[in-house]
Amino acid sequence: MADEGLRFPTAIGTSDEHQIRLLGQDLAADLMGKVGFGELAYWLVAGRRPTPGEVRVFETVLVALADHGFTPTAIAARLTYLSAPESLQGALAAGLLGGGSRFLGVTEDCGRFLAEVLKNGVPTDDAGFDALALEAVTKARAEKKFVPGLGHPVHKQQDPRTPVLIRIADEEGLRGPHLRLFEAIGRVHPQVLNRTLPLNGAGVCGAALADLGLPVDLLRGFALLARAAGLLGHLAEERRNPIGMDVYLTVDRNAVYEN
Amino acid sequence: MADEGLRFPTAIGTSDEHQIRLLGQDLAADLMGKVGFGELAYWLVAGRRPTPGEVRVFETVLVALADHGFTPTAIAARLTYLSAPESLQGALAAGLLGGGSRFLGVTEDCGRFLAEVLKNGVPTDDAGFDALALEAVTKARAEKKFVPGLGHPVHKQQDPRTPVLIRIADEEGLRGPHLRLFEAIGRVHPQVLNRTLPLNGAGVCGAALADLGLPVDLLRGFALLARAAGLLGHLAEERRNPIGMDVYLTVDRNAVYEN
Amino acid sequence: MADEGLRFPTAIGTSDEHQIRLLGQDLAADLMGKVGFGELAYWLVAGRRPTPGEVRVFETVLVALADHGFTPTAIAARLTYLSAPESLQGALAAGLLGGGSRFLGVTEDCGRFLAEVLKNGVPTDDAGFDALALEAVTKARAEKKFVPGLGHPVHKQQDPRTPVLIRIADEEGLRGPHLRLFEAIGRVHPQVLNRTLPLNGAGVCGAALADLGLPVDLLRGFALLARAAGLLGHLAEERRNPIGMDVYLTVDRNAVYEN
Amino acid sequence: MADEGLRFPTAIGTSDEHQIRLLGQDLAADLMGKVGFGELAYWLVAGRRPTPGEVRVFETVLVALADHGFTPTAIAARLTYLSAPESLQGALAAGLLGGGSRFLGVTEDCGRFLAEVLKNGVPTDDAGFDALALEAVTKARAEKKFVPGLGHPVHKQQDPRTPVLIRIADEEGLRGPHLRLFEAIGRVHPQVLNRTLPLNGAGVCGAALADLGLPVDLLRGFALLARAAGLLGHLAEERRNPIGMDVYLTVDRNAVYEN
Repeated sequence: MADEGLRFPTAIGTSDEHQIRLLGQDLAADLMGKVGFGELAYWLVAGRRPTPGEVRVFETVLVALADHGFTPTAIAARLTYLSAPESLQGALAAGLLGGGSRFLGVTEDCGRFLAEVLKNGVPTDDAGFDALALEAVTKARAEKKFVPGLGHPVHKQQDPRTPVLIRIADEEGLRGPHLRLFEAIGRVHPQVLNRTLPLNGAGVCGAALADLGLPVDLLRGFALLARAAGLLGHLAEERRNPIGMDVYLTVDRNAVYEN
Repeated sequence: MADEGLRFPTAIGTSDEHQIRLLGQDLAADLMGKVGFGELAYWLVAGRRPTPGEVRVFETVLVALADHGFTPTAIAARLTYLSAPESLQGALAAGLLGGGSRFLGVTEDCGRFLAEVLKNGVPTDDAGFDALALEAVTKARAEKKFVPGLGHPVHKQQDPRTPVLIRIADEEGLRGPHLRLFEAIGRVHPQVLNRTLPLNGAGVCGAALADLGLPVDLLRGFALLARAAGLLGHLAEERRNPIGMDVYLTVDRNAVYEN
Repeated sequence: MADEGLRFPTAIGTSDEHQIRLLGQDLAADLMGKVGFGELAYWLVAGRRPTPGEVRVFETVLVALADHGFTPTAIAARLTYLSAPESLQGALAAGLLGGGSRFLGVTEDCGRFLAEVLKNGVPTDDAGFDALALEAVTKARAEKKFVPGLGHPVHKQQDPRTPVLIRIADEEGLRGPHLRLFEAIGRVHPQVLNRTLPLNGAGVCGAALADLGLPVDLLRGFALLARAAGLLGHLAEERRNPIGMDVYLTVDRNAVYEN
Repeated sequence: MADEGLRFPTAIGTSDEHQIRLLGQDLAADLMGKVGFGELAYWLVAGRRPTPGEVRVFETVLVALADHGFTPTAIAARLTYLSAPESLQGALAAGLLGGGSRFLGVTEDCGRFLAEVLKNGVPTDDAGFDALALEAVTKARAEKKFVPGLGHPVHKQQDPRTPVLIRIADEEGLRGPHLRLFEAIGRVHPQVLNRTLPLNGAGVCGAALADLGLPVDLLRGFALLARAAGLLGHLAEERRNPIGMDVYLTVDRNAVYEN
């Protein structure tokens, strides 16, 4: 016999014979054709409808993170599609499973790091941000920790995404404390680390998402959503012009058996 | 140094120290802030930039498919998040893995069915579509196959998404042969099946995506992309207001051991 | 308010404060240390305890299928581990997701094909099996379908696993109709296909599992269980002696951008 | 032709036209029918063939961890099978993705905790183990950390698996420092925590695996392998006697929409 009080609350969606409700709206009448997909994704996670400026910054982040060529996740998705072409969902899932700490986690790590540093108060001017950044970078170094969002294996001088995203956030009045602290880290870290590293694109995306008020624990989720689009692009290309078999054969034929 | 013969061609993305190129564009200069996320997803899969009208229909489809409340996929994602909260990518992947033939496959099945029927020629007027639809439904019935896109467990009279999507496609000049054939199936099927079923939302989305020229084999991919946003909404809610533990306990406490 | 009759029946497991019951046994008293892992896996799926001979054939199949070097699934698992080393479950899942129709599905396809052919009656002697095999191969060819289990890209003359598994099944009195039909296919197919193909290892495993009475729809599951062990081996090696980064860099550095 | 510098070393497997080599052995001649599946899994991960005693302890651990009824992972696997029955690999992967920190991670956490404590030296008698355990539990409490392996929501007095596994390890001469330290924690923790908690089954399995010399970072992998068998059992039962649809409907019908 079941608990009488069985209740599974949700504010996301429900439907009856005549209507589908999503986020308190009538899906067909109020959302379809009136709300963009990025806007809906933001609304679903944040639980509130974003402003047009927030949507612009948010979609800019998704565009920035969607793809970066033959990453390990794209290759894994293609190899999985090669092996199980009947299950597109499996190939997409395999690609997303690489969205962890090392290749896709910087966005979340950076947002969390900045939020942590800002926990005890937000500076009011650049000098204040610089002081806070200096303290945070010094502490990270003392603890032998990386400062997330600093450095990039390819873009050694500057990541081209960083200034563009900062500019767009600024245009929309959304260059908030996380972005400002991130910029300050860009200014002050050389005096602690004795070298100048670029502020990378994954990091600036984390800062921008945190300034949008999105929950820091879920920032990786947006990187995954963006990457889902990129992975679909790879799978579409794999279908038209496959490389998976060649990747497999390259590895297999150059295997050196040491046993 | 690379193998001379080793070549992995791609038209998606590449980068060098100063630039990230995506789809033949400069990501930072030409795409960020200028292209929407839905637009980019379309471009990635189709390999061509969509028109504004195509983007509107495409995003309407994504919005229509993003969520449908406590589906099996949403529950699976929440249970996985409960078990492994450190791996958001795992919870999202677990949810997407339910995007198969039964709950999320109708979009692709419907698009494929319509494309198959249209393979030998496209009618020029409604009478022609009706005749083709009648033939296709009759054939499906004779082969004891379902006509994908017909019927819905909840929306027994009409799925509210269907007329809205058809109207928007029409407004954008994108109510093409797949949608017209789907509508014809809606008109003629009662005389074959002896009952009147609604054209469901998943089916009309498949028809609309096929009319956008997107590859039929990948239509499921768009349902998965849309659902990725819905699943992130569920995971965000699970974090704020969890139900996973209650689902688990409800099942476990009402288990009846038969051995 | 919940249904009063909420009941989730299971014959697998349950526990109370003092005992864990699994498959009708006391886990701690009757199974731990007394039942092998392969034996338990068989029991869990088949719902009955296997005989020692069945366990021997079953474990031989699992050993035969556990690994085959740098397959696409092993490479995908390693790339996922590279990207998200904190989530071993994600890397394992990514590898298993390649266990689909093309690289790991032969076992199930072959078992199903043989079961289908045997549906209308089981021959009593080799001549009868040969006649049935001839009919089945002729029909497959007429329908332009592959006969699963025939041919191998590397073992062009003979797959070394095939005679060994047949011998072991024979020793245990478990060389049943599926294996006998598979052997007959090996004898008769040249007269239909005009070339001689080996009976491959994945196919003979499917035949042997079907002769063990395991459900044909779940044969892929045993290939997956076997492969889980192989993938853990790859992940352990990736941890000690990684190749994932080199695979990624080989693909990325030999990318040819065509846009 | 391969890149001269391209080398992907592996000690796992390779094959040529006439032979499949696995772990330095001839798969068909030396392993099939001669090595058990559990033995092979151990060998694959550890890189060395286990002794018969090691195999017995190892398989006892796998049996102990294989299933625990309607866990969140089993329910997630069943819901995924309901949604995408064509992809058994997807349902299995979805279930394994719940093998994270909360429900399946105790085995690894406990092994790692014990290994960490033993890093600076191994006591020679029970008094030494008690002293070390006391220090470790006191330190954990001071840092407000849980001691992994202590306590169980159902088995409040004693987990029935714990004494059985310790006895079997002892019989095989494999009750090493990790198990002895774990037992010592069982003896001394009440004087620190002011209550008596049972040593749970997942924890004792981690201690036993660590005493087998298996790499602590991969202990979760064995829990996943064991659970793969349990999940296949659930999927086989879901096929025969499904509960997935009822779970889904129970949640959906008792949803309370708060928007």
